[in-house]
Amino acid sequence: MNRLLSEDVLVERLKERFSTRRRDVLLGIGDDAALVRVGAETAALSTDVLVAGEDFLPGTDPFRLGRKAINVNLSDLAAMGVTPLHALLTLGLPRGTDPVWLDLLLDGVKSAATDFGLAVVGGDLSASETLFISVSVVGRPGKKGALPRSGAKAGDLLFVSGTLGAAAAGLKLLQAGYRLLPDGGVRSPAGRRLTAARAPDVGRLIRHQLNPRPMVELGRALADGALATAAIDVSDGLARDLHRLCRASAAGASVDLGALPVDSALPSVAKELASDPLSLALHGGEDFGLLFTVPPHKVASVERLASRFALRRIGIVDNTSLVRVNRNNQSTPLPDAGFDHFASPGKR
Amino acid sequence: MNRLLSEDVLVERLKERFSTRRRDVLLGIGDDAALVRVGAETAALSTDVLVAGEDFLPGTDPFRLGRKAINVNLSDLAAMGVTPLHALLTLGLPRGTDPVWLDLLLDGVKSAATDFGLAVVGGDLSASETLFISVSVVGRPGKKGALPRSGAKAGDLLFVSGTLGAAAAGLKLLQAGYRLLPDGGVRSPAGRRLTAARAPDVGRLIRHQLNPRPMVELGRALADGALATAAIDVSDGLARDLHRLCRASAAGASVDLGALPVDSALPSVAKELASDPLSLALHGGEDFGLLFTVPPHKVASVERLASRFALRRIGIVDNTSLVRVNRNNQSTPLPDAGFDHFASPGKR
Repeated sequence: MNRLLSEDVLVERLKERFSTRRRDVLLGIGDDAALVRVGAETAALSTDVLVAGEDFLPGTDPFRLGRKAINVNLSDLAAMGVTPLHALLTLGLPRGTDPVWLDLLLDGVKSAATDFGLAVVGGDLSASETLFISVSVVGRPGKKGALPRSGAKAGDLLFVSGTLGAAAAGLKLLQAGYRLLPDGGVRSPAGRRLTAARAPDVGRLIRHQLNPRPMVELGRALADGALATAAIDVSDGLARDLHRLCRASAAGASVDLGALPVDSALPSVAKELASDPLSLALHGGEDFGLLFTVPPHKVASVERLASRFALRRIGIVDNTSLVRVNRNNQSTPLPDAGFDHFASPGKR
Repeated sequence: MNRLLSEDVLVERLKERFSTRRRDVLLGIGDDAALVRVGAETAALSTDVLVAGEDFLPGTDPFRLGRKAINVNLSDLAAMGVTPLHALLTLGLPRGTDPVWLDLLLDGVKSAATDFGLAVVGGDLSASETLFISVSVVGRPGKKGALPRSGAKAGDLLFVSGTLGAAAAGLKLLQAGYRLLPDGGVRSPAGRRLTAARAPDVGRLIRHQLNPRPMVELGRALADGALATAAIDVSDGLARDLHRLCRASAAGASVDLGALPVDSALPSVAKELASDPLSLALHGGEDFGLLFTVPPHKVASVERLASRFALRRIGIVDNTSLVRVNRNNQSTPLPDAGFDHFASPGKR
């Protein structure tokens, strides 16, 4: 058996295989969500699966896992600027799954769905040696349409929401043996309670990993105001997702490293995790902020959104086909590297 | 850890958990598909997953597997009388999956989707120790609406399409070691080619299992003609699915055993498989015909459809809460037994 191809190559293969000229398919495989016509209406469709051992660690809290299974899907709709409506939930459950565990998982699913007005209307169940949770979501774009990945133009400014690197650091902390305690404290790998000085940073990073917040309202604000030319959610790291946005838009970009919203808690754990904060910010996945491009004449409107959302201007789109980073007036290529579901076994 | 509950009990739990009064949810968890409003339009949503070791045997031909992953979903839409439109495809693939195998699987997906005008518009990929294929579908009901499970009334006549028991017998033949040959012949467990007298029956039963045909056109004809009060696809066996239809409709039914369209090839293999044809017909899953109920004044219209579809009248709905079978003027209860994804490890 040969080595399986990387995720992006597989997606390209699927895109080619299922390309269609049907007039009811407005946007097919390759974006955060598909856009289709159902009669006279436009619907957005997206799906995301979490697989044990790949997308979450054994022993993950089932309530948080249920929330995350919904939230990663909502993040895809957020990146399209679409309002979430309905979801289908498919569970592959090992025989002997504890009904109490399952109830907690469903509590988490319901909790996250309720947060954003998503109704779980159907699903499927199967026994499976490997636990998995697959969710498909339906949403509806607003009157000004959805936000594709493909609309970035040279001269557009590049923005990102939230901070970068926290979720990746949180994963590394979990892998190292840190655990959240029920009272909000944190237990060290050696089983000791962290001091009040250290617990907040470590706890916040872990919560970022376990309980991502989809930027549904931000996506909708960008779409409703026609403020962004392209958008993607940062699920596999800024570098990889920026490369995807640029490829889809047939554009290049340069990022100002000094402007990146590197999470402020990263320096306090970087040494222990043997990780560089900047590289976590560039290549660590699952922050689930939105990365989007804004034409110059709309920058002022976007900056007015900063009263409601943490937004940072981090670079500019250009007409090269390169993605570069600038530091101290030096420009270097940014590698298309980050989390890949197939390339790096056990990376999360 | 406790024993996991049966599939129907789990579905009831999900139904209760996610029940909603939202006006945009016309039909939630518990039918073959959900019915939702997207703006001014009604859409049907359904999802079905195939898991290695549970829903298919290791070594299953990938092209047929891809077709089946689509067709089991189309069968759900067929049971609702809904026209298929769009699909999302999620693959959980073991590391080291052969790209050639994957291409064949995708060929199968595309082939079945194309047969019924279904466009694959998105999906997700993840590594997974257990191979699984999850498909979600969107369809659109016709002007006269969809066919729920819940509309059967006392006095309605019970019909089923196609034959019963063939897919279950096909599975047993595969489990016993029979295999289809590329030229259409059949190889016995001992590695010998079956005689021209035996190969057609055995081959047909295996093909029934590997390549089910969703009754999309029949479902649509029933819905467009407003001919059926309730419908379900026979995925887990006539007995279990009839119990489901009766529970949903708060009705009972009696089935005339002599009228059942027991597949004509079953007697020729029953002895070898140590199975009774009637019990395969009643309790064997995956025939994927439609089981539906017709008010007396519409029976003539349904019988006119018999020029296009193999239809058999098999019983009548009553106002008991019992499901019974009649043979030789004796009436006995029909147990709610069939394929259950959790109750019977390795049954298929």
